[in-house]
Amino acid sequence: MRFVDLIDKKKKGLEHTKEELQFIVDSMMNGSAEDYQVSAWLMAVYFKGMTIDETANLTKAIIDSGETIDLSELRNENCPHIADKHSTGGVGDKVTLILIPVLAACGVPIAKLSGRGLGHTGGTIDKLESIPGFKTDLSIEELIEKVKDVGLAIASQTKKLTPADGKLYALRDVTATVDAIPLIASSVVSKKIASGADYVVLDVKYGSGAFIKTPEEACELAQWMVDIAARLGKKFHAVITSMEQPLGRAVGNAIEVIESIEFLKGNMTLDLKELTFEMAALTLMELSLAQNKEEAFSKIQQVIESGKALEYFKKLVESQGGNTAVIDNYRFFPQPNYAFQLKAESDGFVQNIDAYKTAYACKLLGAGREKKTDAIDYSAGIYLNKIFGEKVVCGDVIATLYANDPDKLETSREFLKTAFSISNEEPHRDSLIYKII
Amino acid sequence: MRFVDLIDKKKKGLEHTKEELQFIVDSMMNGSAEDYQVSAWLMAVYFKGMTIDETANLTKAIIDSGETIDLSELRNENCPHIADKHSTGGVGDKVTLILIPVLAACGVPIAKLSGRGLGHTGGTIDKLESIPGFKTDLSIEELIEKVKDVGLAIASQTKKLTPADGKLYALRDVTATVDAIPLIASSVVSKKIASGADYVVLDVKYGSGAFIKTPEEACELAQWMVDIAARLGKKFHAVITSMEQPLGRAVGNAIEVIESIEFLKGNMTLDLKELTFEMAALTLMELSLAQNKEEAFSKIQQVIESGKALEYFKKLVESQGGNTAVIDNYRFFPQPNYAFQLKAESDGFVQNIDAYKTAYACKLLGAGREKKTDAIDYSAGIYLNKIFGEKVVCGDVIATLYANDPDKLETSREFLKTAFSISNEEPHRDSLIYKII
Repeated sequence: MRFVDLIDKKKKGLEHTKEELQFIVDSMMNGSAEDYQVSAWLMAVYFKGMTIDETANLTKAIIDSGETIDLSELRNENCPHIADKHSTGGVGDKVTLILIPVLAACGVPIAKLSGRGLGHTGGTIDKLESIPGFKTDLSIEELIEKVKDVGLAIASQTKKLTPADGKLYALRDVTATVDAIPLIASSVVSKKIASGADYVVLDVKYGSGAFIKTPEEACELAQWMVDIAARLGKKFHAVITSMEQPLGRAVGNAIEVIESIEFLKGNMTLDLKELTFEMAALTLMELSLAQNKEEAFSKIQQVIESGKALEYFKKLVESQGGNTAVIDNYRFFPQPNYAFQLKAESDGFVQNIDAYKTAYACKLLGAGREKKTDAIDYSAGIYLNKIFGEKVVCGDVIATLYANDPDKLETSREFLKTAFSISNEEPHRDSLIYKII
Repeated sequence: MRFVDLIDKKKKGLEHTKEELQFIVDSMMNGSAEDYQVSAWLMAVYFKGMTIDETANLTKAIIDSGETIDLSELRNENCPHIADKHSTGGVGDKVTLILIPVLAACGVPIAKLSGRGLGHTGGTIDKLESIPGFKTDLSIEELIEKVKDVGLAIASQTKKLTPADGKLYALRDVTATVDAIPLIASSVVSKKIASGADYVVLDVKYGSGAFIKTPEEACELAQWMVDIAARLGKKFHAVITSMEQPLGRAVGNAIEVIESIEFLKGNMTLDLKELTFEMAALTLMELSLAQNKEEAFSKIQQVIESGKALEYFKKLVESQGGNTAVIDNYRFFPQPNYAFQLKAESDGFVQNIDAYKTAYACKLLGAGREKKTDAIDYSAGIYLNKIFGEKVVCGDVIATLYANDPDKLETSREFLKTAFSISNEEPHRDSLIYKII
């Protein structure tokens, strides 16, 4: 088999066999194919696509390119399957921080790997590291031990898993081939399966703050991921959700952890509640820990009201070396030197807050990174005092910006101003969830 | 400007500006773009194409990537433009060997750069090097001096010209992006313009022995090259010719030079005569050395009949250190140790001799190379004793195979047998020339 012939085959729109996809991944990993051949193949895939079977075979080859995590010892009588969640990335998306203690409190063992933020979207690992002392670089053995010990743990992704995905992604990033559905789908599904999950609930986001712009495209990608996972013997569900506006009120790192703790204390923003409850309920039902959605919702409500979910959050922080004092006193989080207010210039209702613009304003404050090696300011961030549908009087504070660099505050505030649309009519509230697949 | 954004732009089917194409070539040459980015861009060009303007701008950038040859001092009162020819490559294509002494004998100064053979097609430089002593690695200064001295000279291509084309071609070859018209057209046109030509007559071949399979595709490519050249201020003509069957009777190296010498002695195979006369006439008319085709044909016929063209061939050989004794005695060419005959197994007329199969059989004998570094056996080759339209009686010798390795003769002969189609009806002879653009 010659790599150039496989490029030519894909260029002509023909279907690769399982052996060919294995050869493509193997050649890339052992260096017998050059990067310029892989990138030409990626571009051919962009134009000619892949079938579900091809994508499943590519996914399998990517999984087999590295180590895989065996979480089977975490299965128990009550919970015979290992669950995981994944979001395609959004603004103010702190669902993982809430979902994992809620599920753990419901009896689901959680051994989760998460990523860091890049570009305009945040990462769960960065957020958790804003808790002083919180350690995320756990070995797989440590991760499993902690789950056995306290019921949940979360670690930063290891490069030992799906190294072929890392290499493919690096090439796609510099060759304008990121936005090809089979490549996105195989990347996500390979990582989740290699991480040991039997069941995964996916959050596929669309809109201003997501890399997918329309609900139709999000549905297509979600269906691909669910189908590929099924071909590989795994059950995935997907919620398709709007990312036109930030999720909740907080965007940043420490500030999002605080909003999550508030949520677990019962102060739930509507959109965040809708999404978290739905994803938790899908998981509980799939794992037979609830017969139907009503029972699931009731269980979730109960672990929050009883403080049990917050208790699990505290266990998580304690088990991974974090300062649990942050839970009761937010002053133990890194504190910003400056706060700056954005005030409404007219009366009305908040019609929209553009998620991408909010994220960009937040990055200007120092809360994000452009390159993997950039440092993050954990204390920087934006609090949306007014969100979608809320009434505003001219002069009201509609947002608060936090930063350590006063030079950036003004620019960020001017930018954030353009994210807000305020007008007279009270807007109609749609469900955040477009579809469940 | 970022290379990845230009890949994305082409991926979306948008048109590059002149500056962008310059940036693409510059980045590739100075190493700021990685090969994997260039190859992704090439694949996007394959799928989305380029306009004539884009291709002309790419061609200009490729020309400017290296040295260019100034042949203006060769212009004279009788011949104010520098002419050149180019063939997209065929089997038995010895037109250059005949055309350049014919044109030189008609008063056209010829300073030509030619290539070596690769794959199934031969190269003029290899053929000339079968003449003992013939030196082709001339410097540009030597090339020009020799033209001034004897009226014509031919040198092997230098890497100093259009280095960007060399790099692009090397990448295209291993990434299945050779067959994109804008890329082929810019490659050919850039080389010819950088070589100093004002006027070029192109032979664009289609069929079994050409890399283009249909006359329609050949016309499209030809029109592109003529149009791009015009955008860059140069006049090109193109003859679109069939390469379904080998040109003339000889396929190989020394054997093709012998057929060319025979042609110049007045023994002209019909197809070779049609093509050579047409290309020579187009050149003479364009350079105002003939008013019309009749006058041109008469001049060409005259320089052959008078022996003047053969005299120029002799001057070429002598000037470049070759043994001119070969012209009168073909035994001074390298001699093969073995000759093997292929005989007809039925009566009838030759309907077709597949050019690709003939070339393949010839390569099996050692007359071609697979890789640039392969050695060539100059004495190896095939002589077609019977060609298209000729009557054959069972047992007649239809081809003679020459080689130094007896092991290869049998395989080659069996293969060559499959190239011949013989049947009862006398076939209709079409013009070799499909169209002139």
